[in-house]
Amino acid sequence: MEKASRVLILVFFFTLLLTSTHQYHPLDPLTPSELNQVRTIVKGSSISPGRNLTFHYVGLDEPDKPTILSWLPDQTRENPPRRAFVIIRANQETHEIVVDLSTNSIILDQVYGGNGYPLLNFEEQIAASKSATTYAPFIASIGKRGLKVEEVVCGSFTIGWYGEEERTNRVVRVMCYYLDETVNLYMRPIEGITVTVDLDTMEIVRYYDRMVIPVPKAEGTDYRESEQKPPFVPSVKAVTVVQPEGRSFSIDGNTIRWANWMFHLGFDMRAGAVISLASIYDLDKDEYRRVLYRGFVSELFVPYLDLTEEWMGPRELYQMFSVYLNDKPEISYGGIPKVQYQGKWRGSVYTHKDQIHEEVYGTLLAENTMGAYHEHFLSYHLDLDVDGDANSLIKTTLQTTRVSNSRSPRKSYWTAVSERAQTEADARIQLGSKPTELLVVNPNKKTKVGNPFGYHLIPGSVVGSILTDDDYAEIRGAFAKYHVWVTPYNKSEKWAGGLYADQSRGNNNLESWWLRNRGIENKDIVLWYTLGFHHVPYQEDFPLMPTISGGFELRPANFFEHNPVLKIKPPKDVKWPNCSTPMMV
Amino acid sequence: MEKASRVLILVFFFTLLLTSTHQYHPLDPLTPSELNQVRTIVKGSSISPGRNLTFHYVGLDEPDKPTILSWLPDQTRENPPRRAFVIIRANQETHEIVVDLSTNSIILDQVYGGNGYPLLNFEEQIAASKSATTYAPFIASIGKRGLKVEEVVCGSFTIGWYGEEERTNRVVRVMCYYLDETVNLYMRPIEGITVTVDLDTMEIVRYYDRMVIPVPKAEGTDYRESEQKPPFVPSVKAVTVVQPEGRSFSIDGNTIRWANWMFHLGFDMRAGAVISLASIYDLDKDEYRRVLYRGFVSELFVPYLDLTEEWMGPRELYQMFSVYLNDKPEISYGGIPKVQYQGKWRGSVYTHKDQIHEEVYGTLLAENTMGAYHEHFLSYHLDLDVDGDANSLIKTTLQTTRVSNSRSPRKSYWTAVSERAQTEADARIQLGSKPTELLVVNPNKKTKVGNPFGYHLIPGSVVGSILTDDDYAEIRGAFAKYHVWVTPYNKSEKWAGGLYADQSRGNNNLESWWLRNRGIENKDIVLWYTLGFHHVPYQEDFPLMPTISGGFELRPANFFEHNPVLKIKPPKDVKWPNCSTPMMV
Repeated sequence: MEKASRVLILVFFFTLLLTSTHQYHPLDPLTPSELNQVRTIVKGSSISPGRNLTFHYVGLDEPDKPTILSWLPDQTRENPPRRAFVIIRANQETHEIVVDLSTNSIILDQVYGGNGYPLLNFEEQIAASKSATTYAPFIASIGKRGLKVEEVVCGSFTIGWYGEEERTNRVVRVMCYYLDETVNLYMRPIEGITVTVDLDTMEIVRYYDRMVIPVPKAEGTDYRESEQKPPFVPSVKAVTVVQPEGRSFSIDGNTIRWANWMFHLGFDMRAGAVISLASIYDLDKDEYRRVLYRGFVSELFVPYLDLTEEWMGPRELYQMFSVYLNDKPEISYGGIPKVQYQGKWRGSVYTHKDQIHEEVYGTLLAENTMGAYHEHFLSYHLDLDVDGDANSLIKTTLQTTRVSNSRSPRKSYWTAVSERAQTEADARIQLGSKPTELLVVNPNKKTKVGNPFGYHLIPGSVVGSILTDDDYAEIRGAFAKYHVWVTPYNKSEKWAGGLYADQSRGNNNLESWWLRNRGIENKDIVLWYTLGFHHVPYQEDFPLMPTISGGFELRPANFFEHNPVLKIKPPKDVKWPNCSTPMMV
Repeated sequence: MEKASRVLILVFFFTLLLTSTHQYHPLDPLTPSELNQVRTIVKGSSISPGRNLTFHYVGLDEPDKPTILSWLPDQTRENPPRRAFVIIRANQETHEIVVDLSTNSIILDQVYGGNGYPLLNFEEQIAASKSATTYAPFIASIGKRGLKVEEVVCGSFTIGWYGEEERTNRVVRVMCYYLDETVNLYMRPIEGITVTVDLDTMEIVRYYDRMVIPVPKAEGTDYRESEQKPPFVPSVKAVTVVQPEGRSFSIDGNTIRWANWMFHLGFDMRAGAVISLASIYDLDKDEYRRVLYRGFVSELFVPYLDLTEEWMGPRELYQMFSVYLNDKPEISYGGIPKVQYQGKWRGSVYTHKDQIHEEVYGTLLAENTMGAYHEHFLSYHLDLDVDGDANSLIKTTLQTTRVSNSRSPRKSYWTAVSERAQTEADARIQLGSKPTELLVVNPNKKTKVGNPFGYHLIPGSVVGSILTDDDYAEIRGAFAKYHVWVTPYNKSEKWAGGLYADQSRGNNNLESWWLRNRGIENKDIVLWYTLGFHHVPYQEDFPLMPTISGGFELRPANFFEHNPVLKIKPPKDVKWPNCSTPMMV
């Protein structure tokens, strides 16, 4: 019931947005009614005349970049055709479909014959779980552990690829957790059992109960405020942020304006939030100047460094958000930050560090609870268009230079040596070992004193993958080894881990495109930035990890003639409070 | 007048703090009346019976650490004796003086015979400026440039040390700027002139007018809101933060409490804010547990990478804050963030980048304005006492490990290999090239599952100095080459650049102490963290640079049995606004 009402609220929210704008923007995400239309068209088509098809991706098949850019200055013109890109599974095959919404027709339907599988959907994950929890040997394994099967909750994890030459079926590993007096199920993993389910047939294709490992106790695992027992830390007073004159940004459809910025905020079921057409108004030039055609999180890669048998494969490539189409009339929108909780903690036979005399791939966080070593890598797709399409990457290295005694009493100084990357090979960069400044510039446009317009990437962390190059996880998630990649813009190159990340063999990911070593000088280029965290857990991460944050900055660098911030009038001071009764709720 | 009233306000503020507490804390900074007492005692002493003495440092001569730690649990006992540490110049000598305030006497007076000089004070900087602006050849140079001498403002810059074997006098380089229609004087440097002033005699000991370089124009340099001309960027609405129930922290004298934290906040004229005795209340143990005995910014080092003659030496070692004692009855407290504005911009003959065919050590930011390459290094002195004095540094390296095929289908993983630093040599660390976790632990105290109590340093940047080791600036500011150093606690080792940083030869700085390679295992240790920024200027830094921020984090790591944040009740939500008339002022 709680879930149903959440779904309703979200649909309502999207409807509101739609009615507030008279005309859609060609980059607006598909509306609920368009999603319904897609479902009706696909299910009514000849692709799978029975009902045996499942949706794995539905999103806007966006118009080509030149189309958008020519539409932009004259928005009264007719919009480009509205189309959806759809990935379905039917008859054990993956179909890529393009639906034209204006003509109510399928204009492309092709079977994908390569390696890798599309995203999992909710229904098949629930079905796979059910296959496990109703499987007699599994029920026996639960009984053998003295656990109650009705308190068991399972999740599906993709299995990866470990060099198999033959095609593997679309299978997942089902891993299970125990509730029984807690809601924090990931703190109570049921270890030692391998359950492999074929998603196309929902059959259990492998079952193995290797050993009984104690399930960590429920005590101390609940993170909900209502379940915390005294004593408490002296409480902090309420705090709030107030804008008495209202908000500073405005929303028109999906277009947001704030200060001198304007951008379109879209949503994709795989990427989550998508920023498009970010431009900044330049007072000196009296015009909006383009900065970023497109920015989104392209991939999230979370390798676990654990060779325990049940942990092979699972927990490797996740995408951040999901939206689902199913047989019911509702459409579920919503973020599923899977990696936040899932499977970071492992059950262990150990209750004290002194007992450990082998590699355990983690930190003992509590009795029988091992926090597994792992890492998080996010790939940001940043299609910068610095005052136009044709851009270059400038890599500036700060070079120590020895001084001859005749020039100066100094012994050394550093200077900034810049090179313009010619091909993709020049622009795959590991940061951290020597000081480097990275700018995307428009080499065709310069400031009055002659500096090319640019934007500067200020990375927030320089953590990269340290697995070996021939490691299979590394082959699939190759983007994580380098902090920066630059590719020429190509509409099809969106997903750093490949469109079909599940069981990917790395043959359609960022590294595979990059290997073509195309020209990137004075071209429409895309910068890919990898933000990473290595996570060696500590006991403070139990039973729920405190927030850790990271990010990066894009700063104008000779994009303006001078500091543009001085031309933003600071808001008036608010003398506050002047209120009768602040209400505490 | 404006200055005088500011001084009055600050004195009032300090008086308030004093009257609100019944007993002072032994780490409280000297009060205005104590500072006056110090001045009276020193000036009335036999050190310099005339009036020819100047104050360069006055601060609390704090009680020894064991004295503080034994006073702490029983604060009704008599406080340790109240003493001041004073550095003066008298008769061209540097005196180190300890004043006992309870007995109104000088208990130590020794002449410092080593290399290096103390901080500059306000009066001598003003006097040095006046020496230049009243010097006939200087007036002639200004005239030759077509400038008005009454619009010239000068500043004093320490000169560094470039390998001279003989002792050099206490001299500064005076560098001058031009106002005339702007307040942003640092954007209008008067280049080409070298003026060297002896601070002890106030004589000009060297004068050289090398060449006339155009002074950049005033237009566009004013950063004041009142002087900006339309058009403006669409303004942002007012925003404020409100706590209807009041603040969450409490202040008792200089002791601050917030949530489960308690610490003493002091002030030192050289370091600025000083945090002492930071402890956190542990609900499980029902006690305050020590974390940080002392934390402050020990040094700020800003090398400029410019070999132009007038730029040799100046602008190298700055301290952040200052407090001044002079002959007048007021005492000026105040932060002087010198490096924020001072001398980053250089006048240049160039007006366009295409004219430049030589090394110019910077970026052309506007006509005749060169933004000099430079860098900022801050050294944080962090005397961590993780649940007690005896601590160790644990350096954990994440090591890639190849997998033999028999163990797993994986090719590699990483594991965390920890070593406990035995001596100072083990703990001088350059971060960035390989993933490393740094913990300060108490090896004598462990969690229930056996992990030593620890705190984790999460660095915010891994920028370090890239000058050669034999470079003189590098010898003086050696701390900047490594991100982390660990030394055994020694009360006298406070200033990473040395107590006498001006003309230092590097023989009493962090590196010189470290060279002793003392034991640091299971000892009272101090961690020094270097936070750095390389600054390659861009036009957006003209005429005033936008904020850039950096920092680091200290996180508990197995210090608690579990996440302590769950035991802080979230504050109530504030329903807001519920106000009659928010006032805009």
